[in-house]
Amino acid sequence: MPLMQNTTLGTVLVKIFASGTLGTRQQLCHSCSLCFRRRSTVTVSLSTSSNNKSSRHSDAAIRSLQKRRMSSDRFRMNIGGEKDFIFKQLLDYKSYTYTYLLGDCLSREAVLIDPVIEMADRDIQVIKDLGLNLKYAVNTHVHADHITGSGVLKKRLKDCKSMIASVSQAKADIKLNEGDLIKFGGHELEVRSTPGHTDGCLSYVWHDKMVVFTGDAVLIRGCGRTDFQQGDAGRLYDSVHKKIFVLPKDYIIYPAHDYTGQTSSTVGEEIRYNSRLSKTRDEFIKIMKELNLPYPKQIDKALPANMVCGIFDEEEAKN
Amino acid sequence: MPLMQNTTLGTVLVKIFASGTLGTRQQLCHSCSLCFRRRSTVTVSLSTSSNNKSSRHSDAAIRSLQKRRMSSDRFRMNIGGEKDFIFKQLLDYKSYTYTYLLGDCLSREAVLIDPVIEMADRDIQVIKDLGLNLKYAVNTHVHADHITGSGVLKKRLKDCKSMIASVSQAKADIKLNEGDLIKFGGHELEVRSTPGHTDGCLSYVWHDKMVVFTGDAVLIRGCGRTDFQQGDAGRLYDSVHKKIFVLPKDYIIYPAHDYTGQTSSTVGEEIRYNSRLSKTRDEFIKIMKELNLPYPKQIDKALPANMVCGIFDEEEAKN
Repeated sequence: MPLMQNTTLGTVLVKIFASGTLGTRQQLCHSCSLCFRRRSTVTVSLSTSSNNKSSRHSDAAIRSLQKRRMSSDRFRMNIGGEKDFIFKQLLDYKSYTYTYLLGDCLSREAVLIDPVIEMADRDIQVIKDLGLNLKYAVNTHVHADHITGSGVLKKRLKDCKSMIASVSQAKADIKLNEGDLIKFGGHELEVRSTPGHTDGCLSYVWHDKMVVFTGDAVLIRGCGRTDFQQGDAGRLYDSVHKKIFVLPKDYIIYPAHDYTGQTSSTVGEEIRYNSRLSKTRDEFIKIMKELNLPYPKQIDKALPANMVCGIFDEEEAKN
Repeated sequence: MPLMQNTTLGTVLVKIFASGTLGTRQQLCHSCSLCFRRRSTVTVSLSTSSNNKSSRHSDAAIRSLQKRRMSSDRFRMNIGGEKDFIFKQLLDYKSYTYTYLLGDCLSREAVLIDPVIEMADRDIQVIKDLGLNLKYAVNTHVHADHITGSGVLKKRLKDCKSMIASVSQAKADIKLNEGDLIKFGGHELEVRSTPGHTDGCLSYVWHDKMVVFTGDAVLIRGCGRTDFQQGDAGRLYDSVHKKIFVLPKDYIIYPAHDYTGQTSSTVGEEIRYNSRLSKTRDEFIKIMKELNLPYPKQIDKALPANMVCGIFDEEEAKN
């Protein structure tokens, strides 16, 4: 609240919040006014039963705030979008891995999809800056190109639990299966099993925001390789066509990696333009068979560490 | 439209579009259904004056489409958001530069902010895939760490004009000044002069989407250096505090660079957590004075090229 204390409206609302009706100041979102707006709605129902001078002030302030909110909402078809949620796309330049922070503005609960061990300090700082409480470190699969940050995050953030597919046979606090829901605050991610790159590949669908996190199953104009770790091109093709490409075409695709500097795509774009997955099943299998990719550099170090979800001596792994 | 031709609704709408009432198929957005929705609204007003069998079919189809649109909109507080617009954040891994593609779904007009010469092929492919027509290649300033893609884009995309601040004294098709509006389709960016990193630094505010593209004036938790190219720490501090930090706190900040793998911030976050700009003016000037940064590697090649907005022999520059 300190940012608003010098305004009349700020002073009024500080009084409301300071009364304890809406919880402690620490729970407020400092970085965006959207959580604030949502709380203001809560304030309305609480203040109508009160008749003292303070509440009259509050009503005026709230009407003003609501008016502003409606006016703002009219324009807000937002990018990067914070409304009742927080969303941050993060990147590891070394492994070209995208990590996604998803938070609920009201409860402050958050999940982090595909954290990278070397980026744990940055991720924890962002989580702290936004006043979030990391509930789950979620892995889309047992990665072969980097070590998951799950272990370090669990060690440093006491409420954090690790998650991975039960099929992967990797260790984790919570094993996920097709159809499970990952809940954080008022939000949830639907778990879809999308094997083919590995046996235990999962995609996470945030229907409410029309977003799907595809791991290595669908990359922008490409896909994960299928020549190691239980890789099976036909199976990957079927997974993507039955579980991802059936989503509405305007769902945003956020992949686990991109090597060309693109940060997102859509289901419609990938159905049409994916250089591999837009082909027939037979053509796709042929393409994948003929890729002749080099042996993954980090695989011998990453796989054993990721099979225990990063719980090992992380200092040694950095060397 | 090919993606919808196998459905009844698709067939009906193909007929409507094929009649020429709404323009050619080439103008449709193939990658998201949102432009399509918007066009369906146009169809309503056109079809009500017609009484033939075809129009009755159309009305039913349109009602169904409108119902679907409303249902979808209820959930859509979208990330990455495509509604009446297209937005893509792109990255050059070599110079850590972010390039932003902004498009209008209806007119297909687009602008590209801070293109990088080496990434021109990728950028053109994305523009082509999305069926956009690049109207402007817009530079936030005369960059010292990479060569702008403006020249190559102008050469390869016939309608494209380059833009830069008139204060920069660099060559470009269009010189920008404080308060100018950059229009593409139904959208516009407000030009704000934010000097300090260089004399001609501009920020672009997309009020409708609550977004500001800050160039090097505000980076995520940092800012551009002020020790060369007319750099002036006090001036940068004043620019940011008077032109950026006065925006609503939930405006998303998209900078020209990030070196820590973060892709966006908000005005509220930077007011609070920016390690330099959250300090007092005197402290900021002291911090910037004591940075002792190395001489920029690309400056001797980049500056002369960028002073002519990339119009030179680009093959030579790549070597």
